[in-house]
Amino acid sequence: MSGLFLSFEGIDGSGKSTQARLLAEGLRAEGRAVTLTREPGGSPGAEEIRRLVLEGAPDRWSAETEILLFTAARRDHLEKTIRPALARGETVITDRFADSTRMYQGLSRGDLRATVDRLHDLMIGTEPDLTFLIDIDPALGLSRAVGRAGKELRFEDMGLPLQQAMRAGFLDLARAHPARFRIVDGARPPATIAAEVLGLARAHIDG
Amino acid sequence: MSGLFLSFEGIDGSGKSTQARLLAEGLRAEGRAVTLTREPGGSPGAEEIRRLVLEGAPDRWSAETEILLFTAARRDHLEKTIRPALARGETVITDRFADSTRMYQGLSRGDLRATVDRLHDLMIGTEPDLTFLIDIDPALGLSRAVGRAGKELRFEDMGLPLQQAMRAGFLDLARAHPARFRIVDGARPPATIAAEVLGLARAHIDG
Repeated sequence: MSGLFLSFEGIDGSGKSTQARLLAEGLRAEGRAVTLTREPGGSPGAEEIRRLVLEGAPDRWSAETEILLFTAARRDHLEKTIRPALARGETVITDRFADSTRMYQGLSRGDLRATVDRLHDLMIGTEPDLTFLIDIDPALGLSRAVGRAGKELRFEDMGLPLQQAMRAGFLDLARAHPARFRIVDGARPPATIAAEVLGLARAHIDG
Repeated sequence: MSGLFLSFEGIDGSGKSTQARLLAEGLRAEGRAVTLTREPGGSPGAEEIRRLVLEGAPDRWSAETEILLFTAARRDHLEKTIRPALARGETVITDRFADSTRMYQGLSRGDLRATVDRLHDLMIGTEPDLTFLIDIDPALGLSRAVGRAGKELRFEDMGLPLQQAMRAGFLDLARAHPARFRIVDGARPPATIAAEVLGLARAHIDG
């Protein structure tokens, strides 16, 4: 039996990492085996590629090279972490997957959406069974993200107009793929959101 | 004025690195500005990706991930080293380019030739103006390569049958692209080969 593949997407500060963790805890409490992972990274090789991309000067790599490196990391993540866990029948929850590349590299660093999609089709091919888009007002998201600023400031450093474009892009993507996406209001208290997400995941599992 | 882009290809031990260097020296002696470079690597970023791919266990990356990493390195090499030098009007000589990926990753690690070509068309797009294929009997090439074995044994370690398949693959590729390729007999003394290569490069430059 193959497990369920779930992803969380959203702009910075949306709370999606918290929600990914809470869903993992919620499903484990019901006795399900869960692998909680994240991108970029998620396997030893992909984490090395992540460091190569995110450390150093922000303009160190062109958008095209960055897309190739993230796709290499995703391929390794898929082969070494996601597929083996699904094959064991586990539920896999990933904090970001290909939709993040579609938005961050596809929109923010030049008009590369079509290239990102073609590269994904050629080298990855897999989509999650269900994607939770944690939707939030970028002003709220940005104030949260700035509050926990560490050394990987790349994405958070892009300012409000870009976050607004990202939010619109994620919502467009969700509307274009209604069977896969669930849009979740991220402005509410984390426990309220977590209860809704768990219900949606359970409905999909049981449905 | 845009400069000329030349590549050297061939199996391990073919002598192509020596010939790339000798051609650079020969053209410089005629007063031409030459950038001599190599793959994988050829720019600071690409050299970092090279280390990531070539160090560690040989089966650390799948063939698909390896192709993505080499293509990321090539994109950086192209943007940071090759195109700027061509824009300055220099002759660029590279020891290996995309044809090596077509052979090594496309043939030796599963049937990925079509994937390599599609990825190249999508993310690289550029071919050399002229490619020198230094053709040699694999038994001779292998004895040379083993003689200088360092820590990057990956390609050299693949044995004679694979080197024979590589040689046939390179020759097929050259025959499929006769305008771009020059097949050079690599069994002769280096100085003899260098004189022929310099003549072929000069004929292309003047033609």
